[in-house]
Amino acid sequence: MNETLDVAIIGAGTAGLSALREVQRRTQRFVIINDGPWGTVCARVGCMPSKILIEAANAYHRRGSFAEFGITGAENLKADVPAVLQRVRRLRDDFVRGTLKATEGLGERAISGRAHLLGPDRLEVNGRELRARRIIIATGSRPIVPAPWRDLGERLLTTDTLFEQKDLPARMAVVGLGPVGVEIAQALSRLGVELVAFDGMETIAGLTDPAVNAVAVELLRREFTLHLGENAELAAEGARVRARAGAAETTVDRVVVALGRRPNVDDIGLETLGELDERGLPPVDPGTLQVADLPVFLAGDSNNQAPLLHEAADEGHIAGINATRPTFARFERRTPLVIVFADPNVAMVGRRFKDLGSSGVLAGEVRFERQGRARAGQHGHGILRVYAERYSGRLLGAEMCAPAGEHMVHLLALAIERSLTVHDLLRMPIYHPVLEEGLRTALRELASQLPAGEESDLAVCGALGAEALD
Amino acid sequence: MNETLDVAIIGAGTAGLSALREVQRRTQRFVIINDGPWGTVCARVGCMPSKILIEAANAYHRRGSFAEFGITGAENLKADVPAVLQRVRRLRDDFVRGTLKATEGLGERAISGRAHLLGPDRLEVNGRELRARRIIIATGSRPIVPAPWRDLGERLLTTDTLFEQKDLPARMAVVGLGPVGVEIAQALSRLGVELVAFDGMETIAGLTDPAVNAVAVELLRREFTLHLGENAELAAEGARVRARAGAAETTVDRVVVALGRRPNVDDIGLETLGELDERGLPPVDPGTLQVADLPVFLAGDSNNQAPLLHEAADEGHIAGINATRPTFARFERRTPLVIVFADPNVAMVGRRFKDLGSSGVLAGEVRFERQGRARAGQHGHGILRVYAERYSGRLLGAEMCAPAGEHMVHLLALAIERSLTVHDLLRMPIYHPVLEEGLRTALRELASQLPAGEESDLAVCGALGAEALD
Repeated sequence: MNETLDVAIIGAGTAGLSALREVQRRTQRFVIINDGPWGTVCARVGCMPSKILIEAANAYHRRGSFAEFGITGAENLKADVPAVLQRVRRLRDDFVRGTLKATEGLGERAISGRAHLLGPDRLEVNGRELRARRIIIATGSRPIVPAPWRDLGERLLTTDTLFEQKDLPARMAVVGLGPVGVEIAQALSRLGVELVAFDGMETIAGLTDPAVNAVAVELLRREFTLHLGENAELAAEGARVRARAGAAETTVDRVVVALGRRPNVDDIGLETLGELDERGLPPVDPGTLQVADLPVFLAGDSNNQAPLLHEAADEGHIAGINATRPTFARFERRTPLVIVFADPNVAMVGRRFKDLGSSGVLAGEVRFERQGRARAGQHGHGILRVYAERYSGRLLGAEMCAPAGEHMVHLLALAIERSLTVHDLLRMPIYHPVLEEGLRTALRELASQLPAGEESDLAVCGALGAEALD
Repeated sequence: MNETLDVAIIGAGTAGLSALREVQRRTQRFVIINDGPWGTVCARVGCMPSKILIEAANAYHRRGSFAEFGITGAENLKADVPAVLQRVRRLRDDFVRGTLKATEGLGERAISGRAHLLGPDRLEVNGRELRARRIIIATGSRPIVPAPWRDLGERLLTTDTLFEQKDLPARMAVVGLGPVGVEIAQALSRLGVELVAFDGMETIAGLTDPAVNAVAVELLRREFTLHLGENAELAAEGARVRARAGAAETTVDRVVVALGRRPNVDDIGLETLGELDERGLPPVDPGTLQVADLPVFLAGDSNNQAPLLHEAADEGHIAGINATRPTFARFERRTPLVIVFADPNVAMVGRRFKDLGSSGVLAGEVRFERQGRARAGQHGHGILRVYAERYSGRLLGAEMCAPAGEHMVHLLALAIERSLTVHDLLRMPIYHPVLEEGLRTALRELASQLPAGEESDLAVCGALGAEALD
């Protein structure tokens, strides 16, 4: 392999594999280089194992609804935590195996090792120098752990180590209540761990709408202790950990640190590409993924723009296509979408509340306490808020902590992606009785603030004002 | 009340109440007449009580997943059926109360009694004749019970009587596996009743796509006995019922007859409006709800066009507005949508498979056995099929028996309502890991049969080919 490659892909995570798929269609003169175990963050330590854990935790938590439904014996249910964690790993291993197939059969074009850039068309791996016309950097990210806390050793867990635990101790803390922290804290608590959670901010799960955040915080407070608004300090206390934030102080057996993820770009030679920002990252065009004006692309978590699987897949796709084209295509990115798999689901789509500005924006809201279907299923908690442009009625975004939020947010994502108005959305059929009727209630509240539509349009059909019917 | 009324509404169900809301906004010279107990079919004997029963049944059934999740003690759970039914009635009563509010305070404008039409502008109720410029007939429907079976007395139940039961017997039959029959049969079976179900057709739940129907039948067969393709015959056998269909014969304690609903129009004087069809119904324009060229409207279940709550609400809305206008507005109706709250959900949207015609139509399909999120949550069953126009890629419809089908079908309903293409839908963000990724798989299968899109469009982004990532 002394010839100049067409493309070198550094990293075989989701973005790298997505890039690989496109590169492979267009050239066979490529390599894909991976440091550490092959397989993606998503499958190994991210989306998939956390969702398997959450599904078990939620199934167990649901026993609290059994007496009301008329089901007896819930008190005899026990979460066999080692068995729960074993299933997490069993399914995870299966999911990881699936991701490994993508690089099977590549022979020496799949290289295990740590790559270092020597310039925009050269890199070194395992002591060997490679030249490539284009380089795709997709080195992913890793959990942020403040340096002083590393001394906590096994007392400190991250998503890298949590799913490897054979059992869970009686008392744990979660530090950081962003999307991942909220998911993990609620799941651990629901599995029977006495849980204390900390975040330096007053908002959780990435929410920016204070009304939605207040509901999310209140609902989680029914399940475990939250200390918000003060940064946590951690210190070893024998085999345990003392956590302090402001006046709150507690001792736990283990602490899960969920302060977000840092791009894996520290010593891969990015400085050979020119000036870096304060985070150590070069300028990257989100429409092309190109680094500055170089034949280099930075995709996925490693560019720190939108560290989410579906965005990483898109970015790998963009980088993979552009790395094999003479000129770079500019892609229109998708409507922003975040789901936090808490229960009720937290979700955000389109423009965040905090970015809406102070004028020209309307909001519609629904609470799920009295929503008919939510009551039937004992899911009567939560709030959903939708934002629309005052002059046009165009949907701008939504934030929610709502039952089936993960589904309703996709409906809203399609509406926003298509630039639909409140009125357009109210034209669609909503079946009965479904949780989407709650969303419709919020849309009708928006519609009531907009100019009235044509009388002969079913979109203006109002609520019947009865729980059983709306 | 000797003057001529502006509007007389006959029936205070969903369609009648929806009409009432519009009429009340425009005139106070109206009456609403109701025969029998006030409150809607939906709240009393339909959508709501069945959903409350189903939620309890599904919560109990879910215990079958507990061992795999790592939750022990499921064998000690019991469905306390009397308690389950008590909750059904408690919540139902609450929902009914909500619907009653709509007619509170109407004084003598709300009349309890059976109305008989005397002509297109006259009717009689409680021995009194009323004249009205416009009449809205919204008399609803009732379960169909073949005459010979009425001798079965208490051995035979319908949705009118099922939810009044204090307990359920050991062994029951459900005759008729349309949407309601499927919901009831599965719920009763999941609550521990030994269940046998019959339908004269080979298709169930209103499905018309043989591939989807086959999956739905196979999944239900895992839970209870189905005899399809032969009409059932019922006969009393002591206190029990003998049910026979073809070679199959069985004896049960009670039988639920779910053969659909018949409009309540038998002896209300429709013949005074002109010629009736073989079902005893006059011609009704679905865009205006007008009967023939008369100042009379037939809305909701009573016109037998789309006996579904959301359609009844629309029809009441249309009739209520048109009954107060000098000329009648023509409303564009919504995309057809049906959800059957089985588990997995059965749902149909847009054009049915059977109405697609034989050419010019493409189908995309996904099975949920290997879908990542479905596996994580032990919901890995089901199928979803989407249909699109070959020459344009426009979405035409879908049928499914799929986890979260009730949600995904709304996404498809919006897409179809907006005349979107497969490509348009593939432009939207799909989060990870969600069941909507399954829908995307079906859409990608469709896209692969359509002309390729622009390379620089994220809608053409393909699958990664790994369960954990798609």
